[in-house]
Amino acid sequence: MTDVLAPIDLHPLLGTRRSSRLFDPAHTVSDAELTALLEAARWSPSAGNSQPWSFVVTRRGDLGHDAFVQRLAPGNALWAPSASALIVALCRVGDDENRNTYAAYDLGQSVAHLTVQAQALGLNVRQFAGFDKDGLAADLEVPAEWKVTTGVAVGRIHQSVPVDLDPALQERDAAPRERRRLDEFVFAGRFGQPHA
Amino acid sequence: MTDVLAPIDLHPLLGTRRSSRLFDPAHTVSDAELTALLEAARWSPSAGNSQPWSFVVTRRGDLGHDAFVQRLAPGNALWAPSASALIVALCRVGDDENRNTYAAYDLGQSVAHLTVQAQALGLNVRQFAGFDKDGLAADLEVPAEWKVTTGVAVGRIHQSVPVDLDPALQERDAAPRERRRLDEFVFAGRFGQPHA
Repeated sequence: MTDVLAPIDLHPLLGTRRSSRLFDPAHTVSDAELTALLEAARWSPSAGNSQPWSFVVTRRGDLGHDAFVQRLAPGNALWAPSASALIVALCRVGDDENRNTYAAYDLGQSVAHLTVQAQALGLNVRQFAGFDKDGLAADLEVPAEWKVTTGVAVGRIHQSVPVDLDPALQERDAAPRERRRLDEFVFAGRFGQPHA
Repeated sequence: MTDVLAPIDLHPLLGTRRSSRLFDPAHTVSDAELTALLEAARWSPSAGNSQPWSFVVTRRGDLGHDAFVQRLAPGNALWAPSASALIVALCRVGDDENRNTYAAYDLGQSVAHLTVQAQALGLNVRQFAGFDKDGLAADLEVPAEWKVTTGVAVGRIHQSVPVDLDPALQERDAAPRERRRLDEFVFAGRFGQPHA
C-alpha cells in the first residue's frame, strides 16, 4: 500500500472519485438526477444481457428512507442518513434449479456505472454493506430469488465542513486513498507472477 | 424490453458504450493503455477497501494468450482471439473461515471502471464467461482462495467491416441494445412497486 494518489492519466470521472461520508443533509436529489443514475445502471453490461439487478429507491424524508435508516449498523448510522437518497441494490441469484453465478458481479458493474454517472453530475456515492439485510428484505417483501446486497448512498458533499460534524468522520474522509500496487495484483503467465 | 437506445442525458462514456465482438486483429494495445486500464480497476471502490481482485494479462501473440484461447468455448473462440488483449479476472473469495461475500460484486465494479477507462481511450471491451475456468485456473496455478470469474477482451473495433468477417457476428453486433424498462427494476416502498 505505497501509492496513495490516483494517477493523473486516469479519466477524471474515475481518478477523482472517492466514497465520501460527508453528505450535505440539506441537499436534495432531483427526479432527473435519480433517473440519470438509474439509466446508467440500466445500460451496464451483464452476462447474456441477464440484467440481474433491481433497486429500491428512498429519498431523505420518505417513509422508506426512515425504514432503511432503522436497519443501518451503528457505524453507517453516523453518516448515511445525511445522504439525499439511500438505494437498496439487489441481485437476482435465482433458485437451486437456475442459479445465476454472475448476479453479484453484474450488480457490482451496474452500481459502478451508476457511480460514474453520479460523478458526472457532481454527486457523491458511498456504498455500504453494514445493515440488517434480512430485516430490510422482510420490510420490502423481497422474493426469495432476489438478494439484498448493498446500500448505495447518493448526495452532495458538504461544500464547507459544518461545525457540528463528527470529527472522526472528517478525519477518515481526509485520509489519503490507498490501494495495492499494480504488481501485487496484475500478473502474467501465471497467478502471482508480476506483469512486466 | 421496449427501449433500445441509451438516453441522451447519460455521460457519453456510458451512453455510447457497447460490448462489440468486432475486434480488429491487426490492432495492438500499448503498455501505457494497459496500465491505464488496470489503474482504473485499481482505484475502484470495494467493501472495507478489500480490493479482492487480480488480473492475469495476456496480449495477442503471447504464450499466455494462446493458452487462454485454447480454453475458450466455441462461441467465444469465434471473436475473442481477435482482441488485442485477453485478461483473466479473478476475485478472492477466501476460505470457509474467512469468506468474502462481496468479492464477485467488487470485481464486477473493478472491471466496470476498467471498461469506462477503455471507452475513454477509444478501446472496446467485451466481457465473457464461456471458457474452461477450472482448466485455466490449473494452467495459471491459481490458489484455492481465488476464483477465475470472467474474461475481459480489450481491443479496437474494426474501422470498416472486413470482407472475411463472419456475417453472423456482424449481425449480432449491429442489433440494437436492449434493456428492461426502468419501471421493471426500479421500485419504491417495496420490491416490485414501480418508483414514481
